Amino acid sequence: MSDLAVQPAVIDLNADLGEGFGRWRLTDDDALLSVVTSANVACGFHAGDPGTMRRVCERAAAGGVVIGAQVSYRDLAGFGRRAMDVPADELADEISYQIGALEVFARAAGARVGYVKPHGALYNRCVHDAEQAAGVVAGVRAAGGSLPVLGLPGSRLHEAARAAGLPVVEEAFADRAYTAEGTLVPRREPGAVVEDPEEVVGRALAIARDGAVRSHGGTPVTVRARSLCLHGDTPGAAALARRVKAELAAAGVTVRSFV
Amino acid sequence: MSDLAVQPAVIDLNADLGEGFGRWRLTDDDALLSVVTSANVACGFHAGDPGTMRRVCERAAAGGVVIGAQVSYRDLAGFGRRAMDVPADELADEISYQIGALEVFARAAGARVGYVKPHGALYNRCVHDAEQAAGVVAGVRAAGGSLPVLGLPGSRLHEAARAAGLPVVEEAFADRAYTAEGTLVPRREPGAVVEDPEEVVGRALAIARDGAVRSHGGTPVTVRARSLCLHGDTPGAAALARRVKAELAAAGVTVRSFV
Amino acid sequence: MSDLAVQPAVIDLNADLGEGFGRWRLTDDDALLSVVTSANVACGFHAGDPGTMRRVCERAAAGGVVIGAQVSYRDLAGFGRRAMDVPADELADEISYQIGALEVFARAAGARVGYVKPHGALYNRCVHDAEQAAGVVAGVRAAGGSLPVLGLPGSRLHEAARAAGLPVVEEAFADRAYTAEGTLVPRREPGAVVEDPEEVVGRALAIARDGAVRSHGGTPVTVRARSLCLHGDTPGAAALARRVKAELAAAGVTVRSFV
Amino acid sequence: MSDLAVQPAVIDLNADLGEGFGRWRLTDDDALLSVVTSANVACGFHAGDPGTMRRVCERAAAGGVVIGAQVSYRDLAGFGRRAMDVPADELADEISYQIGALEVFARAAGARVGYVKPHGALYNRCVHDAEQAAGVVAGVRAAGGSLPVLGLPGSRLHEAARAAGLPVVEEAFADRAYTAEGTLVPRREPGAVVEDPEEVVGRALAIARDGAVRSHGGTPVTVRARSLCLHGDTPGAAALARRVKAELAAAGVTVRSFV
Repeated sequence: MSDLAVQPAVIDLNADLGEGFGRWRLTDDDALLSVVTSANVACGFHAGDPGTMRRVCERAAAGGVVIGAQVSYRDLAGFGRRAMDVPADELADEISYQIGALEVFARAAGARVGYVKPHGALYNRCVHDAEQAAGVVAGVRAAGGSLPVLGLPGSRLHEAARAAGLPVVEEAFADRAYTAEGTLVPRREPGAVVEDPEEVVGRALAIARDGAVRSHGGTPVTVRARSLCLHGDTPGAAALARRVKAELAAAGVTVRSFV
Repeated sequence: MSDLAVQPAVIDLNADLGEGFGRWRLTDDDALLSVVTSANVACGFHAGDPGTMRRVCERAAAGGVVIGAQVSYRDLAGFGRRAMDVPADELADEISYQIGALEVFARAAGARVGYVKPHGALYNRCVHDAEQAAGVVAGVRAAGGSLPVLGLPGSRLHEAARAAGLPVVEEAFADRAYTAEGTLVPRREPGAVVEDPEEVVGRALAIARDGAVRSHGGTPVTVRARSLCLHGDTPGAAALARRVKAELAAAGVTVRSFV
Repeated sequence: MSDLAVQPAVIDLNADLGEGFGRWRLTDDDALLSVVTSANVACGFHAGDPGTMRRVCERAAAGGVVIGAQVSYRDLAGFGRRAMDVPADELADEISYQIGALEVFARAAGARVGYVKPHGALYNRCVHDAEQAAGVVAGVRAAGGSLPVLGLPGSRLHEAARAAGLPVVEEAFADRAYTAEGTLVPRREPGAVVEDPEEVVGRALAIARDGAVRSHGGTPVTVRARSLCLHGDTPGAAALARRVKAELAAAGVTVRSFV
Repeated sequence: MSDLAVQPAVIDLNADLGEGFGRWRLTDDDALLSVVTSANVACGFHAGDPGTMRRVCERAAAGGVVIGAQVSYRDLAGFGRRAMDVPADELADEISYQIGALEVFARAAGARVGYVKPHGALYNRCVHDAEQAAGVVAGVRAAGGSLPVLGLPGSRLHEAARAAGLPVVEEAFADRAYTAEGTLVPRREPGAVVEDPEEVVGRALAIARDGAVRSHGGTPVTVRARSLCLHGDTPGAAALARRVKAELAAAGVTVRSFV
């Protein structure tokens, strides 16, 4: 790892927020907003009622956290986790709709929507599926403002975004195992999710400082990322996020939004 | 009617558009867009999928028709026609959400959202109900830009809008009977809806030119309006709208948006 | 209280269950199912996805808990807590739909739907509103089987149910204050909700054994009920329910379903 | 075609009905109900509000038309035409829910649900996808009563249904082109849909009487079917359906439900 020196010493921390709906709450929004630098705010299609969207935007803006549109398939019952074959033009319109809806709350809070990140099944589909990726990118472009697209390095989503002239931001996961090729180990495989907090912290550091982690097979693998995704829907998530941030700071890594 | 001279010789024609959802269509959007000067575009809560919203915005913008947000209670199954007791703050957020969602399509079409008009049960509730009216107005204000609010003269909606510093635009209905006090005869009463096209045209003229129509009881009643609402969801609606517009022009009334 | 002897020494305990939706959970269904004798199962209109409905039915059936259809206005975003003016015939169809949907899961679990109880705003509307009550009762009747209707004594709901030949079951609330007239103190008034667990247990006993509690004003008031509603969506709810049940048993009250 | 004699001279005519939602109508239900022998009634997931379900059931029952549950992915916005990866157990519950909801209206009309047919994307997925087919079949089984499953010959749906002990009913399409292998020509290919009414009538006769039609390539291909699907959502659909039925009768084919 002789290229250590060229790795960024700057990292963004993003997390999914506002993923309740009406009576239901899921994420500990306030706790997470005190840690992350980018808030992926649910926009109503997999989660996120208007009131929650407003409140998260207000608190994010007050705390200097960048607001991102966490766009999804229209699937409240499945929490956006069920892949759908949505024609690209139809998907584009659904993406634009969500961005616009969030924008009004961001603006009311004195901020703006700073980026877009697909959620759940849409995120996963956009890794390999050019049509779904094209739909998302078209929706972001139609919404205007050349918003950066947060996603996996090498994804079709980033290919499509680059081709459309949109900025891309690469993200990595400290709590997911990587293959030797640098892709995520599918969730259904054993060891796909790193559950030990100690190890999550270690991997966050490795990614942010060294641009590399140990792969599932044991060999080092390059994982470049300008943003690190922290999960917010598990007990202890906020505490772990806080620890990751503290260790990054202690190691000299600057935690800062990419916007 | 000695104050004829001071009546406006300018009137706007508005109609509800884009009231389909997914596979379903309701209004003859293209035909109506060639007639009206203001398009009340459904925003997804009682009707209006993202694709329809985009298309209506594109065509409205291309034809110079002003785009308005036709906001509603969240009630697809009831087409927004079932009154709901939504707490004012919750309602405000739902209104903002709808305006923001429409805005993205208006902007993509090179236009902007020019006004707000509540739909169906929300429209009716806002005539007399101060809490619902307050919710709508708060939602419009949060969305920014001081959008004019289209509604019934004397409504709680207009009271609240004025108090909040929002412009108000008064509208009248050529196909609805008025009481001697100038309020609409409730739909459930006989004669509430004027169905004869000849009479609708005559009443449109009377309102636009004279600021007065014959009331249900037969006496003349003052009906001031800067905008005339044309219904678009009945067979022959577009043809009737076209005729109303032609007769207004022939009578020297300028048909022009209020924005 | 000389009529103590004629008071029932038998009481049913009911609670709202299955009030999650998709990814979201609300009630501690398993814990409550080990206590109550009647489960008000959400049917998908305010909460309750099909999977949750199936699981609650399976567990209720396994534990001998009677399954009831907790029917609601169609309002996921508002959790069924926003009153709606639904025409009676339309409401009837929506009620039938929900009962039918639940029935399939009850039957698959070897049980059946044993009663119907409106949820939230629909419950409240049906206390005073004859049209909404008529809609619910028509929906229950159309679903067949003469299901008992669980509700407040003296409610329009019970009037309509009796008139239609449906059995009625009266319920009371151990954690709500009563007026001297025996009606519930509205939630917005101070002291409307009894929060002290000690007091809730005491009131449960008083209602079940004596058919009377102390009113908000301090005077004793008759509160007859064949069923006691326990709330399940607060922390400690299951523990409190368990204690109420134990104290009732200790006091010689038989806890038994009304079906 | 020497096996002409063994072909059934009995055929069922099925059509999708009740595919409106709330304010929106799509199919000419009354006209179609006077022709078909089996009504695929939408159950609320892609279309079909409770009121429409009730009315279609009442009219079907009155006219002796068999009621079938037209089950779908939960996708009102996409009319159930967007394929979804729904886990089999989750899909099973969603299917059961829909069947139960329809059952209550069938029963209220003095009838019963007589069969199940998947709609749109679910129908198409179940041709080749064993997991989705398994989900549908599990949902039908859980609903009880061993309902026949209407679908394409050779589909995974029919495989799974047979393996689960459910009766299967094979259907064919008079307005769709078939490959030489007897499968449907995909809709996106030219000539996939037969639009000439004359030809549709001819093909209906060929399928019902001869069990064979000319394939897309021109060679005869065996198409066995106990039911013929007639489309109801195009102008002239009801008239064409009526003609098909008349010609079948004139040719000595008995038009009769499979239930």
